[in-house]
Amino acid sequence: MSKSMNNENIMRRAVIHELYERPLTGAAIESRSLETIDSEVGSHAFAPDQWEVVRRMIHTTADFSLMKSVRFSPDAIESGTGALRSRARIYVDSAMIRAGLSLERLRKVNPDYKPEDIFCYVAYPDIAAEAAERGLPRSIFAVRKARPVLHGGIAVFGNAPVALLELNRMIMEDGVRPALVVAMPVGFVHVTESKAELLGLDVPYIAVEGRRGGSPLAVGTIHALCSLAAGRGVGTRHEREGESG
Amino acid sequence: MSKSMNNENIMRRAVIHELYERPLTGAAIESRSLETIDSEVGSHAFAPDQWEVVRRMIHTTADFSLMKSVRFSPDAIESGTGALRSRARIYVDSAMIRAGLSLERLRKVNPDYKPEDIFCYVAYPDIAAEAAERGLPRSIFAVRKARPVLHGGIAVFGNAPVALLELNRMIMEDGVRPALVVAMPVGFVHVTESKAELLGLDVPYIAVEGRRGGSPLAVGTIHALCSLAAGRGVGTRHEREGESG
Repeated sequence: MSKSMNNENIMRRAVIHELYERPLTGAAIESRSLETIDSEVGSHAFAPDQWEVVRRMIHTTADFSLMKSVRFSPDAIESGTGALRSRARIYVDSAMIRAGLSLERLRKVNPDYKPEDIFCYVAYPDIAAEAAERGLPRSIFAVRKARPVLHGGIAVFGNAPVALLELNRMIMEDGVRPALVVAMPVGFVHVTESKAELLGLDVPYIAVEGRRGGSPLAVGTIHALCSLAAGRGVGTRHEREGESG
Repeated sequence: MSKSMNNENIMRRAVIHELYERPLTGAAIESRSLETIDSEVGSHAFAPDQWEVVRRMIHTTADFSLMKSVRFSPDAIESGTGALRSRARIYVDSAMIRAGLSLERLRKVNPDYKPEDIFCYVAYPDIAAEAAERGLPRSIFAVRKARPVLHGGIAVFGNAPVALLELNRMIMEDGVRPALVVAMPVGFVHVTESKAELLGLDVPYIAVEGRRGGSPLAVGTIHALCSLAAGRGVGTRHEREGESG
């Protein structure tokens, strides 16, 4: 039984032929997307380097409403870009963030970045065993194991609020001090509290307040910091003026 | 110069101690999150098995507004769960989706699922070379290479709209017919058009209309289908009634 829909399928012209006739690279599409965001956003109170981060968060979600929830500590961009330039180690709370982070973008900031500079312990067998024994989520124990990475490193959370809660404790009680905390866990249990607690601590952070968050936001934040760090060059603030957008 | 904030850090009690005193597993937190969504959602028009999918999309983004944009073809759940039960191959458009898909959840549906049943070609060197030569995004050529996987397989898009456009063309012109298209590319260029075109084709789909989308939504959709397929057992619709939630 052939449906009439099938005939319609054949009759119409596929949209992609327009792209074949006027090719656009992936990089060109990215630029056009960022221009679209700039043209639609209207006025906002973000500093230019903060906007670089927020714009990429909008780019990765197509959600302008996130603008209302993004929070920067005053030193976040400076500390985060400085850490990337000195090839700070990066701790991530999910395999999705690890998969999304672009080594190419990191190497534009510091050519010595290697895959082994990105740490993710949540799938380690010893972590799973400890979590099962204690009746607690694995991500808590993954963060504990990461302590040497977290002190001076970049801590990236796009998934697990309890991991951020445990980092908050390590900051409060154990003297751990990351160069930057990217605080974007998402969900309905412990999430809002984990970010509210972080925002009261004396540590550089970029956060999405409330329940919203996710791995793409965390990845987009790091990639925006890579653009800022690479654009500025090493240790100068002024080179970026020549960048477009 | 020590800031007064540091003293405050030490004075307050870290929130995570509450969790240590009353432990909750990751699974318990997930259940509580899903209950929270159910208690807050209000009325909606989704069928119970569709709601399983939409609820997980809300779980992974904490964004109830997505409900307005999710579209199911009438045969989507049946075709998608059937495909998972018969260990259909899965094509994904990003490394993040591959990293996010849980082999454990897939194996609860069909214990024979293996990592090699998930295909992602976007980072292949031959794909990058072809894209550079043609001045087009890599994801187009990744989809073309995936043709044997896509016919009868599950096609998952959480990133690249041009990949979905190319699949649409293959459906319209080449007779390719996936068991399910998960259509959730995100962004500002080609995105809305790619989904609008798909929704006019005679193929099972679950889509997020408009600009919104993303890898976590695509992963959440597959995981929800895994729950439905595993809960129902093989080929029966009625076993799921005993499930909680």
